Amino acid sequence: MARTKVPLPTLRRIPRYLRLAEELLSQGIIHVSSAELAERLGFTPSQVRQDFSALKEICGISADGQQGYGYRADSLRSNMERIMKLSEEKPCVWIGIGNLAMALARNFDFKRCGIRPTAAFDILPEKVGTMLPTLSGAIPICHVDTLEAYCLQEHPLAASLTCPPFSAQNIAETLARAGVRGIWNLTNVDIRVPEGVELESLHLSDSLMTLASRIPIA
Amino acid sequence: MARTKVPLPTLRRIPRYLRLAEELLSQGIIHVSSAELAERLGFTPSQVRQDFSALKEICGISADGQQGYGYRADSLRSNMERIMKLSEEKPCVWIGIGNLAMALARNFDFKRCGIRPTAAFDILPEKVGTMLPTLSGAIPICHVDTLEAYCLQEHPLAASLTCPPFSAQNIAETLARAGVRGIWNLTNVDIRVPEGVELESLHLSDSLMTLASRIPIA
Repeated sequence: MARTKVPLPTLRRIPRYLRLAEELLSQGIIHVSSAELAERLGFTPSQVRQDFSALKEICGISADGQQGYGYRADSLRSNMERIMKLSEEKPCVWIGIGNLAMALARNFDFKRCGIRPTAAFDILPEKVGTMLPTLSGAIPICHVDTLEAYCLQEHPLAASLTCPPFSAQNIAETLARAGVRGIWNLTNVDIRVPEGVELESLHLSDSLMTLASRIPIA
Repeated sequence: MARTKVPLPTLRRIPRYLRLAEELLSQGIIHVSSAELAERLGFTPSQVRQDFSALKEICGISADGQQGYGYRADSLRSNMERIMKLSEEKPCVWIGIGNLAMALARNFDFKRCGIRPTAAFDILPEKVGTMLPTLSGAIPICHVDTLEAYCLQEHPLAASLTCPPFSAQNIAETLARAGVRGIWNLTNVDIRVPEGVELESLHLSDSLMTLASRIPIA
């Protein structure tokens, strides 16, 4: 993989290309044009061409676009999987095992996201010492006081935050200090991370608020 | 409110300005400069100025920026609340009451998002006929076969989809046909909606996949 990074807007579209490629293959469709890709994904055709040309330039891989035939769905899938490095399965800890974490643990195909959950952390006595079932196997729930020591010893690369909002910043700092390189923030508060730590915040309420504001009344 | 729409990228940043304004007020901070706003939210100062100038032009309201003093946090909050029309509390149905829906129902301040849940729908006999507790009060869980009739009679404006992926497209079409104007899609599949229906898809696995791909190994 080249050192130049894929631009973030393009990177964010890759999971959608990947999902569409899988859908096409499951329907027995082999070829897809950039116009069809754009139409089905709600992108502009020029956005699709720009994405693929950036990926070719940066990663040296292409989706095998052929004049008159379009792209091959199987190349599209395997190339997108490679760009997203899904085979790497980065070890990930989970902090705050409430309803949201339970829902995700039970339903989420982490392997498909390039992630392998290794341990969970909480403070509640009835949770600590039990196992959290996930699709990739059960993981132990440990006390959050042991989080830093665990990270220093086991070197998880990623962490998922579903802890209460008031503790999110402190926990993020502990994780960064202990070598975690990427934080998935689902706490609905904005947190800061030091340079060298990747942050992906998913604010569910921002998304719902944005939708609601776009709906006209009557 | 003017008919011209706030550009979507600006609209998506408003919940973050709003959250920061609330945080500042809770800390007793009255004035904030665009540079501080930018720094705390990870935007560029020019992005902040552009957002505010677009909001002033389109909505005719400003955050009262004053040379040397910056913006007032209280004006910022009330103006952002107005732009997001949070007082409208649009009625919303919920389809698919699994773990994710339960987690959100129990923790989510819908009122704060301009939404009022009115009814939930599922197919499981052990759920249908019971009540779903939410922060805004409990709502009935009805059979999904009654969804269209309910919508035609009660006119909910929004719907939240946490149903199984295979039924998402069908349900979205039913909702659109029955007059629902905005769909919050949490099913992790891409769906299509007819013109006149707003769609906001939140793909949790896309977000995690994007994060994982950005973390370097070793």
